[in-house]
Amino acid sequence: MTGLTWRETRDAGRSGIALLPIGSQEQHADHLPMGTDTLLASAVVDRAAALLEGDGPPVVRLPVLPYGHSPHHLFAAAVSLSAATLSAVLGDILGSLARSGYRRIMIVNGHGGNDEIMRLAVKEFALHTDAAVAACSYWSLGTLSPDEQAAGRPEVTPGHAGWFETSLMLAAHPALVRTPLPVREPVEPPPLFDRPPHAGLTVERHGEWERVGGATDDPSGADAERGGRLLAARGAELAQAIRAFDTATRTHSA
Amino acid sequence: MTGLTWRETRDAGRSGIALLPIGSQEQHADHLPMGTDTLLASAVVDRAAALLEGDGPPVVRLPVLPYGHSPHHLFAAAVSLSAATLSAVLGDILGSLARSGYRRIMIVNGHGGNDEIMRLAVKEFALHTDAAVAACSYWSLGTLSPDEQAAGRPEVTPGHAGWFETSLMLAAHPALVRTPLPVREPVEPPPLFDRPPHAGLTVERHGEWERVGGATDDPSGADAERGGRLLAARGAELAQAIRAFDTATRTHSA
Amino acid sequence: MTGLTWRETRDAGRSGIALLPIGSQEQHADHLPMGTDTLLASAVVDRAAALLEGDGPPVVRLPVLPYGHSPHHLFAAAVSLSAATLSAVLGDILGSLARSGYRRIMIVNGHGGNDEIMRLAVKEFALHTDAAVAACSYWSLGTLSPDEQAAGRPEVTPGHAGWFETSLMLAAHPALVRTPLPVREPVEPPPLFDRPPHAGLTVERHGEWERVGGATDDPSGADAERGGRLLAARGAELAQAIRAFDTATRTHSA
Amino acid sequence: MTGLTWRETRDAGRSGIALLPIGSQEQHADHLPMGTDTLLASAVVDRAAALLEGDGPPVVRLPVLPYGHSPHHLFAAAVSLSAATLSAVLGDILGSLARSGYRRIMIVNGHGGNDEIMRLAVKEFALHTDAAVAACSYWSLGTLSPDEQAAGRPEVTPGHAGWFETSLMLAAHPALVRTPLPVREPVEPPPLFDRPPHAGLTVERHGEWERVGGATDDPSGADAERGGRLLAARGAELAQAIRAFDTATRTHSA
Amino acid sequence: MTGLTWRETRDAGRSGIALLPIGSQEQHADHLPMGTDTLLASAVVDRAAALLEGDGPPVVRLPVLPYGHSPHHLFAAAVSLSAATLSAVLGDILGSLARSGYRRIMIVNGHGGNDEIMRLAVKEFALHTDAAVAACSYWSLGTLSPDEQAAGRPEVTPGHAGWFETSLMLAAHPALVRTPLPVREPVEPPPLFDRPPHAGLTVERHGEWERVGGATDDPSGADAERGGRLLAARGAELAQAIRAFDTATRTHSA
Amino acid sequence: MTGLTWRETRDAGRSGIALLPIGSQEQHADHLPMGTDTLLASAVVDRAAALLEGDGPPVVRLPVLPYGHSPHHLFAAAVSLSAATLSAVLGDILGSLARSGYRRIMIVNGHGGNDEIMRLAVKEFALHTDAAVAACSYWSLGTLSPDEQAAGRPEVTPGHAGWFETSLMLAAHPALVRTPLPVREPVEPPPLFDRPPHAGLTVERHGEWERVGGATDDPSGADAERGGRLLAARGAELAQAIRAFDTATRTHSA
Repeated sequence: MTGLTWRETRDAGRSGIALLPIGSQEQHADHLPMGTDTLLASAVVDRAAALLEGDGPPVVRLPVLPYGHSPHHLFAAAVSLSAATLSAVLGDILGSLARSGYRRIMIVNGHGGNDEIMRLAVKEFALHTDAAVAACSYWSLGTLSPDEQAAGRPEVTPGHAGWFETSLMLAAHPALVRTPLPVREPVEPPPLFDRPPHAGLTVERHGEWERVGGATDDPSGADAERGGRLLAARGAELAQAIRAFDTATRTHSA
Repeated sequence: MTGLTWRETRDAGRSGIALLPIGSQEQHADHLPMGTDTLLASAVVDRAAALLEGDGPPVVRLPVLPYGHSPHHLFAAAVSLSAATLSAVLGDILGSLARSGYRRIMIVNGHGGNDEIMRLAVKEFALHTDAAVAACSYWSLGTLSPDEQAAGRPEVTPGHAGWFETSLMLAAHPALVRTPLPVREPVEPPPLFDRPPHAGLTVERHGEWERVGGATDDPSGADAERGGRLLAARGAELAQAIRAFDTATRTHSA
Repeated sequence: MTGLTWRETRDAGRSGIALLPIGSQEQHADHLPMGTDTLLASAVVDRAAALLEGDGPPVVRLPVLPYGHSPHHLFAAAVSLSAATLSAVLGDILGSLARSGYRRIMIVNGHGGNDEIMRLAVKEFALHTDAAVAACSYWSLGTLSPDEQAAGRPEVTPGHAGWFETSLMLAAHPALVRTPLPVREPVEPPPLFDRPPHAGLTVERHGEWERVGGATDDPSGADAERGGRLLAARGAELAQAIRAFDTATRTHSA
Repeated sequence: MTGLTWRETRDAGRSGIALLPIGSQEQHADHLPMGTDTLLASAVVDRAAALLEGDGPPVVRLPVLPYGHSPHHLFAAAVSLSAATLSAVLGDILGSLARSGYRRIMIVNGHGGNDEIMRLAVKEFALHTDAAVAACSYWSLGTLSPDEQAAGRPEVTPGHAGWFETSLMLAAHPALVRTPLPVREPVEPPPLFDRPPHAGLTVERHGEWERVGGATDDPSGADAERGGRLLAARGAELAQAIRAFDTATRTHSA
Repeated sequence: MTGLTWRETRDAGRSGIALLPIGSQEQHADHLPMGTDTLLASAVVDRAAALLEGDGPPVVRLPVLPYGHSPHHLFAAAVSLSAATLSAVLGDILGSLARSGYRRIMIVNGHGGNDEIMRLAVKEFALHTDAAVAACSYWSLGTLSPDEQAAGRPEVTPGHAGWFETSLMLAAHPALVRTPLPVREPVEPPPLFDRPPHAGLTVERHGEWERVGGATDDPSGADAERGGRLLAARGAELAQAIRAFDTATRTHSA
Repeated sequence: MTGLTWRETRDAGRSGIALLPIGSQEQHADHLPMGTDTLLASAVVDRAAALLEGDGPPVVRLPVLPYGHSPHHLFAAAVSLSAATLSAVLGDILGSLARSGYRRIMIVNGHGGNDEIMRLAVKEFALHTDAAVAACSYWSLGTLSPDEQAAGRPEVTPGHAGWFETSLMLAAHPALVRTPLPVREPVEPPPLFDRPPHAGLTVERHGEWERVGGATDDPSGADAERGGRLLAARGAELAQAIRAFDTATRTHSA
């Protein structure tokens, strides 16, 4: 959208899908940069957009929102929007898009802490506006391709600043990954937010992120090659999700 | 808590776990009552509490919150708290419990629409208070026992006003279920919020609940016997979850 | 409402009156339970509903709101909603009822601390919605019958955890009253919030509830017999108030 | 305060009582001005201050807040603060006074619509600040002196734009009262907000103020002489209330 | 408006301009009173109103808002509304005026700290309401007349509690100015909020107001004669501004 | 910051200055893109950063906030945050930076509609946090160099989508400027928000932006050469402002 005039923005909104990537600025251990989630959400959207060019539905990319909800990382360093603020930001963006003629919007998220807020925003918006809205976190889209099954490690996906994110960053922004990769010993007990004591239970304990040192698993085995395959798979899933959303909501284009 | 004096309330808080069930008042098709989610959350908590008596950790039950976030059911009938209101209610309850000496709290939810708000509340609270807090929706706890696998139908669990909830209500509150059970023909396309066009995508479309008639699947095959087995299994899972939470957070009892 | 389907809920709303009891969870000295206000509001509504059956106006009871505004009791123990939160809850409930077809609503309050918030909510709602709304605290309804004059002690009514509430609880929930009843010596000076230094003045002083030990007067003389008469009288008054509200607002039923 | 320097303001706050009059700008029928409530609150405070001079406790008058909560008068004309706004204003004023060294504050209200908000503000403030705060509406202070009993008409006190307020305005600001006074025929049924169908019931019905023409009773019998006696009596009551508040809260002066 | 009936208020709103002066209560060093900004805004409006009488556009004066946004003066003494509160107050006043028939409104400000909030309020209001709204701070209106150039000292205008405000107060309210005027030595470095290190930069540093003693420049040279000329010039500018606003927005009177 | 680890972020915060550019997404007539303000704020910061490299104070650039307060452009197309939302975003960012160790922060703004909100945020923050914060809009920094005086046209600076912004965009992002540049005839009367009827008066009229076609002046004479000189001058001014802020606030680095 940044490069479009307002008439082009309006025209694209008649039948197109607005795509809003959202990320964060927050500690990612000692080897990944603050903007990791923002960079990876953008990278996945880049790959999906490339796949859609030509025969995909028209897509208007909005500027990535580089700040997310990261209060649990402020013990180290983060630039965090409160839940209320992020909720208001997403509501305002969705509302503006509707005012500007859009009826189909998708949010692509790169940061776990944004997840509930994003889904609430999408629900709230669709209640009051005649539109169809989708939301996803890039790592949980779709089913794993054989190659992704081979390359990936679901038990540490997505994690935080661990094997998965490090692998993707080695593929997408190798210059921003500090090497040699640190070796992280398992913390006992593992973080309750990541490994709840009973399946299906959300458990939050004060100071837990700081106790476990700000990461979920050992990044030291990450490599760019597998990261590249995973990133490509994530982009392909997002492209397919956009096509599926387009098909399911065509009645909402004008 | 309703029957405890304040000293008993305080004393119990030193080592006990506060248990807050939350539900909703909202349309549940033509055969289930408005309070279905509230009644089922309470029924599961009843069964878990019975299993814990004797050797379980001390538990203080709070009065069930009978109102939830149900704006999507107002097209028919509901008493709904906005997301901001429910969020404030949960925050105030958690904060009051902490002020009253509690360090371990669990929310047990009976209504899908409360899910994100409940999890946000739990996260927000643990950021600022030295406590451990858990949250769950009763249908997604734990893994299925063989009996539950035999009795259940995961593809329509939990759904809304469909086979699963009707089965449980036939077991828990048969007098409140209108019979004969209505037969519900599949709606095409199925509701996007329940069957997204791509796995992992949250899709919300304006008017979708009204379009599909306010329910997700056909309740007509529900029966009390299987409902009773499912309800027992849910209660057992909750009891186990409470034990596991107790073990994991004993350092937070005073 | 909990047991009604949505169609029954809607149908009842056309000519009926929605009845919302609200209470609290808060310290009530050493002999009364946390839920006293909630239990008594419900007890009064029970008695009124029984009196109305048959020839009274149709009434739809909502689930009691078991949490109120009790920040002044947190020094001991309470589960309190802030004024803003309770205000939002009542506004959301009233608004939902209007959306669901109700035009006549009454709130029956059991906790003094809810009073201003309840009345503000009722005023705000009627400004914006074509409806008639009533609100009352159960102890201040109507005029005293001869029997109530004989049984009661207006100088300590309602008070908090004193003679009046203890009497009613002995009648309504004797098993929840700890005996022998404690004897409470007068505190000097008496609490400013209860005995202002000049008639008509509201006076609030920091720490006053804690200074006077959390109650207003001596409960030791309370007995179940007089409590039963007072409770019956309160139920009768509420029933009459509902009839009067019905008569005065029939033009608002559809 | 307007004429004091900040050091005088601080010095006075050590042992003095801050006095905040609040009023409204709203329709008062065809014969009284918009600022009636503001003018009368100020007039009562003037008279009380005169009586206290010399031997009364030190009092610091704040500028009257000329805007109140009057949404029910917007059908004609008003400048109204929402409940949330007025609540915030009072909270900010109280908080600023505390920051500036005050520990004893009294609000004197001239407009019924401010009543609940004022009392909530006072309660909220005293919860969090080591201070003593009082609030009153000038017409409901104290007990009636024999002269006030003779001069007054309790059944229409205070009412709105009726006999009582017109009498006081004829005494306080005769030039602002339009004559001849209008004659107001009784409206049937009388306004529910002023004459509820059952004692102790608050009833609000949409459009009720407009239906009854914006006033509660007939002003045509008002006269300046009785108005003067009533105003003097109100001032005397306020002076006594201030003395009583002073005596009761001396421990809160530094 | 205070003295108008509601019909007069409505009638005046058809073609007239509503004029809202706003001020503050805040420390003004040792020689000026807390209400200085309120008093000066009122004084300028008085002078403008006098100049407009006869041939000017019809103007309805609202009661001055005596409280503004002064958190930076609380270190000494102030009664301050938060930015959110003042914003809500202005929004409510503007909205009420629109509801009461006004289409042309002007805010005249006497306190620098209100400036951004006032301008935001005016912009927000005009977005949603078919009206024309103006706002100004009295010292920055128009261009300097030759007499004002001769009498004034632009390098310390307006400042805070310095030469300019002291001069005006000596003319408008000499009895409220404490004499002899204090002599204020320059503070090094000068306050960053008043003398930013680079032109066009807004710089705020914690504790800066307290560091420089609560004033910006030396008041000791102020005199009533020049203050009177400046005040007259400010009134004349405001009168001209009102005429210009009237001419530019006549299409907005009904 | 995006590329820094959290330790680098923290380390830089000890003595460095955090730099936050903010912009907008909003209509810029038919020839400039939606992101113009964001792109130009970034371009000025780029040039300043280049000038500071080597001998300037350490600076940490935050990701540009690409969304601003643009409700007045929604008549065409915009993605706008409400004033409350943008205010919350800036407050959260400033607060996070303080939590992460920063004591010196500067906001560089590219969109007029953000101005008051940015300045309020900066003031609010410095009240409560021991820090020094600066804010500016890039076009109003400093004094004009001789070259800038020669190249510029102050009477249309900054304007909106007119000669000034078009010139800068031709220099910074020529590929995003649609040519041939449109010719814009003067609108009569000119927009009140840009040309108030009296100097020093802020005037906002409903629908004014739409009436004048969304721009303030004729862009057709813009050229890249002068745009480049203006852009270089703006970057130089910002660099000097950063140096001056650094000098003035060194006591705030740790």
